[in-house]
Amino acid sequence: MGKQKKEPKPKALPPKGFRDYFGVDVSERSEMLRQIADVYHLYGFEQLESSAVETVEALGKFLPDVDRPNEGVFAWQEDEGWLALRYDLTAPLARVYAQYRNDLPSPYRRFAMGPVWRNEKPGPGRFRQFYQCDADTVGSASMGADAEICAMLSDTLERVGIARGDYIIRVNNRKVLNGIMEVAGILDPTELDKFTEERGIVLRAIDKLDRLGLEGVRQLLGAGRKDDSGDFTQGAGLNDAQAEIVIGFMQALGATTAETLANLRNLVEGSAIGEAGVDEMEQISELVAAQGYGSDRIVLDPSVVRGLGYYTGPVYEAELTFEIKDEKGRTRQFGSVAGGGRYDNLVKRFTGQEVPATGISIGVDRLLAALRMKGRIERSSLGPVVITVMDRDRISDYQAMASELRTAGIRAEVYLGNPKNFGNQLKYADNRSSPIAIIEGRDEKESGIVQIKDLILGAQLAKGATLEEWKARPGQIEVPRQELVAQVIAMLAAQGLTE
Amino acid sequence: MGKQKKEPKPKALPPKGFRDYFGVDVSERSEMLRQIADVYHLYGFEQLESSAVETVEALGKFLPDVDRPNEGVFAWQEDEGWLALRYDLTAPLARVYAQYRNDLPSPYRRFAMGPVWRNEKPGPGRFRQFYQCDADTVGSASMGADAEICAMLSDTLERVGIARGDYIIRVNNRKVLNGIMEVAGILDPTELDKFTEERGIVLRAIDKLDRLGLEGVRQLLGAGRKDDSGDFTQGAGLNDAQAEIVIGFMQALGATTAETLANLRNLVEGSAIGEAGVDEMEQISELVAAQGYGSDRIVLDPSVVRGLGYYTGPVYEAELTFEIKDEKGRTRQFGSVAGGGRYDNLVKRFTGQEVPATGISIGVDRLLAALRMKGRIERSSLGPVVITVMDRDRISDYQAMASELRTAGIRAEVYLGNPKNFGNQLKYADNRSSPIAIIEGRDEKESGIVQIKDLILGAQLAKGATLEEWKARPGQIEVPRQELVAQVIAMLAAQGLTE
Repeated sequence: MGKQKKEPKPKALPPKGFRDYFGVDVSERSEMLRQIADVYHLYGFEQLESSAVETVEALGKFLPDVDRPNEGVFAWQEDEGWLALRYDLTAPLARVYAQYRNDLPSPYRRFAMGPVWRNEKPGPGRFRQFYQCDADTVGSASMGADAEICAMLSDTLERVGIARGDYIIRVNNRKVLNGIMEVAGILDPTELDKFTEERGIVLRAIDKLDRLGLEGVRQLLGAGRKDDSGDFTQGAGLNDAQAEIVIGFMQALGATTAETLANLRNLVEGSAIGEAGVDEMEQISELVAAQGYGSDRIVLDPSVVRGLGYYTGPVYEAELTFEIKDEKGRTRQFGSVAGGGRYDNLVKRFTGQEVPATGISIGVDRLLAALRMKGRIERSSLGPVVITVMDRDRISDYQAMASELRTAGIRAEVYLGNPKNFGNQLKYADNRSSPIAIIEGRDEKESGIVQIKDLILGAQLAKGATLEEWKARPGQIEVPRQELVAQVIAMLAAQGLTE
Repeated sequence: MGKQKKEPKPKALPPKGFRDYFGVDVSERSEMLRQIADVYHLYGFEQLESSAVETVEALGKFLPDVDRPNEGVFAWQEDEGWLALRYDLTAPLARVYAQYRNDLPSPYRRFAMGPVWRNEKPGPGRFRQFYQCDADTVGSASMGADAEICAMLSDTLERVGIARGDYIIRVNNRKVLNGIMEVAGILDPTELDKFTEERGIVLRAIDKLDRLGLEGVRQLLGAGRKDDSGDFTQGAGLNDAQAEIVIGFMQALGATTAETLANLRNLVEGSAIGEAGVDEMEQISELVAAQGYGSDRIVLDPSVVRGLGYYTGPVYEAELTFEIKDEKGRTRQFGSVAGGGRYDNLVKRFTGQEVPATGISIGVDRLLAALRMKGRIERSSLGPVVITVMDRDRISDYQAMASELRTAGIRAEVYLGNPKNFGNQLKYADNRSSPIAIIEGRDEKESGIVQIKDLILGAQLAKGATLEEWKARPGQIEVPRQELVAQVIAMLAAQGLTE
């Protein structure tokens, strides 16, 4: 016999920043992802489910001068080396594409949906495990791939229940910004790949437009900015003329697509890379227009600045434009639910070859929240018909009833707790959101009848509806046992709850 | 500017024992799990998706005398303590039930599906990440819960495509074995919870019936057994009479349920716990029979020995009975695809209270393999219609075609690789398993026509079918551009490929 140390009781909690999903929260997300997958499939994209665990080397997060990998990932050491949970779905795509590049179609259109993990400080609404849903085309440099992603995103949003007019997909281009910076004298086009301090500050400044507004960005482009707490952020040191060129880029949105393009052409005049970027934007707008996507759905908009520092060509962002109240009761637009763009260095780490790629990532939790807010998801939280247990020796009778109901497609279950206290059984039915309870005691059994109790009506009566209003719908009916299924179907129909 | 060390190229491989799933391998599993979820939902079970990461304490795998947790799990240390990937779906259920016990219905019926991780040596067909699919009822001591699980498992197997007659669900009971051991003088019923060396060996011996056969088990029950390699395993030291009682248990299956029950009653005569176990088996058989499940679907079978060491009451196992050829070409039954039973100490670690629970776990990969073997899954691996690019300046024309086809519900995509080599485009369509390619060059465009190429026919012709046989189906047709969608629909129908 081994010694048995008395362990203290473990806490019944998940680790900080992790959570559990129950019932409809799982099924509603599954249903939304299924709809998204249908659209992606129709566009020729193939699903990929890569392993949740990768080598740290493959994820590319290993910092050689620290003992353990980047704190942003969950990583641990095995005999074979450091392993880590994937922190997004793009890094695994790069590994898979490099691994299978001789067998995969080229270009390779793939979508992926699943949890990712971030080893970050959790906060309100910020979790360390969350869902991502990505679609990418690897191996095509054509703007056709970018236009297709934008069209597919538009179809996807409408498919899951966002009405046309309630969203807009905005398209910008990193090359245009590069051209602007060239014109402003911040960037040398012959040394595009070379990082300069100044350019980094410009990119970071632009990325802060949403948060700081134009004036804040202007300060960061110039000498610098002191924030409310008095902290000073060093600026890029541009002179006013330079800063105005960059600001002009963010304000280049015209009344029409043609006007926007003209504004941009004007700004990048003389920069080859800038002109190439404007050409790309023009191509995308023509390609989506030819498929019938007008600027009410997909629009060129140079004020899209998120991700410009990361992507290498077109950048897209989908925003929901309907208004909601924020925590402080102020009205604001719902905002971004998806974003993406072109990144041409995906696979290079593995193979040395540059492979063009472009893709989109949908914020699954945000999109689901939007659909719930707009009432676009029918909360199918209706519980099962509960068959109460009046006589504990007749579980087989009750289970036979449940079986008959299920055969008719009706969700049903027998109460299997301690049947002694009937009040507990009704409390259970209430907790289960049951529409109907079935009662068959000894007397009913002998008379060949069952009681069918309308729990929806019961709840409405409890809320104050007068019996008068409901006289056509008695709260409890007594029916012959053989009519059980038909009468339950009729009551569900009267409740408006049949599917 | 930071120093940039030149890193060696990472290997494009997942960690050992991990794998990726592509295309239909993902969608077929999703579809099977969706069907299973439908059945579970109909029975009143609610889905639970717990976090993939748990504290090591909550998983209960922490060994206090080693530096790191049990090698069977993937675990790592954070500031807050040791975290680990879940190794099954039962341990997280215990944590969730203990955490939410005041809000969850009681009894709580829940199902869960998702990946689990095992830090074990990978081997052929043995992976370190795999899917589980569990259903459990927590908080009910009623045999009604066990009978329900067995009925639900039967419905589930038929729903996903296992025909009646191709499977059997066998039910055994740990209490009967305890009774047998009491009668054989191996177990003292007043000290049931106390572990004895002898009993442990008996349980392990019984668990090896599948592998060693009756004679091997008989040796292990007695003095011991020498295996083929000459290694000796110490036996339980039972005398022949004792061993025969235990062996009798495994052979107690009768021609009818009544006969099996009579055999068992005979064997456990005088043991209270044994008689309770036989009563439980009888109750389950009556309960499932009352719902119409005969012994062709759910049968009492004392030869089910797997898990008897782990479970505390009823034990169930679902086997597929149709025959397959194994790797060596021998005919054998497909075997087990699901198993489970009653375990009454699930939540005790957290709360100190004993909570009865019973449940089942389906081997997702094995069941899927069985369905594929039986041809019960339509491989919907059909690729999209591929629109080739004859004129790279007219991507918008081609994307408009794809858009029209998709609007008609037809999966379609434009070739977005380098269009220079038309052979590459057809090779691509082949890799994509495309049924049809569309061709519209400059001449076609000017004449207002498109070419529709039948790639299925092409493949059949390449395989040797004579043109004669296919004369009614020309390999390539020329149709007016505005008839594109209608003609593609007609060709898919002729190919027998419309959905």
